[in-house]
Amino acid sequence: MAGAPAQGEINRRVLLVRRPTGVPQPEDFSFDKAPVPSLGDGQFLVRNIYLSVDPAQRGWAADAANYAKPVALGSVMRALAVGIVVESRHRDFAVGSHAYGWFDWQDFAVAEPGDVLTRFDEPEVALSAYAGVLGINGLTAWLAFHNLGRPAAGDTVLVSTAAGAVGSIVGQLAHAAGCRVVGLTGSDGKAELCRSRFGYDVALNYKSGSVETLLADAAPAGFDIFFDNVGGAILDAGLRQMRVGGRVVQCGTASVPAWSPPPEGLRNEREVLTRRLSWSGFVIFDHQPLFDETMKQLVAMIRSGRVTYEEDLRSGIEAAPQALADVYSGRNRGKMLIDLGVA
Amino acid sequence: MAGAPAQGEINRRVLLVRRPTGVPQPEDFSFDKAPVPSLGDGQFLVRNIYLSVDPAQRGWAADAANYAKPVALGSVMRALAVGIVVESRHRDFAVGSHAYGWFDWQDFAVAEPGDVLTRFDEPEVALSAYAGVLGINGLTAWLAFHNLGRPAAGDTVLVSTAAGAVGSIVGQLAHAAGCRVVGLTGSDGKAELCRSRFGYDVALNYKSGSVETLLADAAPAGFDIFFDNVGGAILDAGLRQMRVGGRVVQCGTASVPAWSPPPEGLRNEREVLTRRLSWSGFVIFDHQPLFDETMKQLVAMIRSGRVTYEEDLRSGIEAAPQALADVYSGRNRGKMLIDLGVA
Repeated sequence: MAGAPAQGEINRRVLLVRRPTGVPQPEDFSFDKAPVPSLGDGQFLVRNIYLSVDPAQRGWAADAANYAKPVALGSVMRALAVGIVVESRHRDFAVGSHAYGWFDWQDFAVAEPGDVLTRFDEPEVALSAYAGVLGINGLTAWLAFHNLGRPAAGDTVLVSTAAGAVGSIVGQLAHAAGCRVVGLTGSDGKAELCRSRFGYDVALNYKSGSVETLLADAAPAGFDIFFDNVGGAILDAGLRQMRVGGRVVQCGTASVPAWSPPPEGLRNEREVLTRRLSWSGFVIFDHQPLFDETMKQLVAMIRSGRVTYEEDLRSGIEAAPQALADVYSGRNRGKMLIDLGVA
Repeated sequence: MAGAPAQGEINRRVLLVRRPTGVPQPEDFSFDKAPVPSLGDGQFLVRNIYLSVDPAQRGWAADAANYAKPVALGSVMRALAVGIVVESRHRDFAVGSHAYGWFDWQDFAVAEPGDVLTRFDEPEVALSAYAGVLGINGLTAWLAFHNLGRPAAGDTVLVSTAAGAVGSIVGQLAHAAGCRVVGLTGSDGKAELCRSRFGYDVALNYKSGSVETLLADAAPAGFDIFFDNVGGAILDAGLRQMRVGGRVVQCGTASVPAWSPPPEGLRNEREVLTRRLSWSGFVIFDHQPLFDETMKQLVAMIRSGRVTYEEDLRSGIEAAPQALADVYSGRNRGKMLIDLGVA
């Protein structure tokens, strides 16, 4: 079977060896080699093809309480990945079928059904898309924007990290929903990408001036929806530009380097009150029952050209730690993935 | 007609003469006397009976942008009041009927239908209740708790200013909804009042220890609903004790003395995100179409004894400015009203 471990093949793994206090650095990880694990009843072996690199990994690597348990020091770094089933002792997971799930930063994962987020026999679009626009990034964009943002045609929408793996999809979904979309991003080049490819009517380099002024000029009447991935000063500025009854969707806090000691900032309860905001937190893993239906919608939009996406593919498992650090400093264009050279 | 202005009677008024930067003080107001105004077509004259004293008046007196326009310096202080129609040139507002609305801190108000929040021919409960538990305080409690808090039986609810005009009603509504209710208040006496009269299972004097510790001890599994009237450090502590999926209702920010210069505090976006909170602002004046139906529910609960209320009645219009300052320092028990001695 294509993809089955070769005689004597080993499992390369990325271990978490030091707990990052802020943004994970390459020194927080080490590499090792282990035998390809063997299966128990009800398990199947996945050969990873694309490893996902996600801002959320910072939270999984940190020691603080979070929505997920911290990764134990010395163990394989938790990660999502897309791969192919190469051995199976579970009758529902046939050899040769594909899955996207908790397969971690390694070549081979022993998996059980609970580790799988989505699955498919043959890809309907490029396989890498299943770890990005059809993975938690695109699913987050769709579900958070539609279910918490509650867009109506004519709404004005603000998106932070507009060129990122989630923001780039939100821009296109907002455009498709008949909204006017304003994006914040970290370079003029990314801003251009937002305008030319990701559905943004206005895209701003937040480093080019005062964010308050940029936002006031871009939307003098304010925003109905703020899809925020960064928190911090950009969140504060966006909140102060919301219209009465606006919806704020908190999908990430990527701009805040560390939560210990607790950082301070502007008090925001008066904005919530006087603007009658509805400010909601979104964690994609709460919404798994909706993944299959949402994927169908996204596949249709990709195939019809209404949703396009950008990938930043790095080669080889050794690239994973630096790729994660790069995501935090904005040195990525679109979804960051590690290509293990299998496909 | 009872209540009609006597020959030569004058209209005593409280004017805003200095714009408070924080909590309004008696020196921000002056008293004057003016002729009883005469009516134009479509207007009616209300003799005020109870003047309302509300924390929201700080916002109306301040110069900052808000959900309401600031009161002009030198004009009568904006206030709600309950009164009786004593002259009328509007066929829908008969002499002898009652109304609650924007009648300001004065004896007589020239009113139009748009100034009226609720109206009734004869009171079904004590007249003063129409400016408190049946006025914006009780209506806020009902509509914000039910529509934004979305209580379910068995939920654990946290309320700040638990003994106040709004909080005292929220406690009873939460109790009636089958919730476990924890209140924060500013004295042991008020805490006892919360337990004995306002439906609270636990009532805590926030000055008696660390709020974080008090809340963690009172609800080790956290809160499903936080009905917050104060903002500031109590809000921050409450947010950090919310359960996943919790609802935070922002009804006031009474603990924050001033918003200019912008005060700082703990950053809260990570709490919104990781706890998947839904944090909403509530301003009662958005919900006027629901007032009549809500009043019926509250009247029924008052008459059946399921809702009780406390009033702090001060005598005479001269007491109004100090009464407002007292509301901010917690020197009131229940709803603060000025009794003009008419009833």
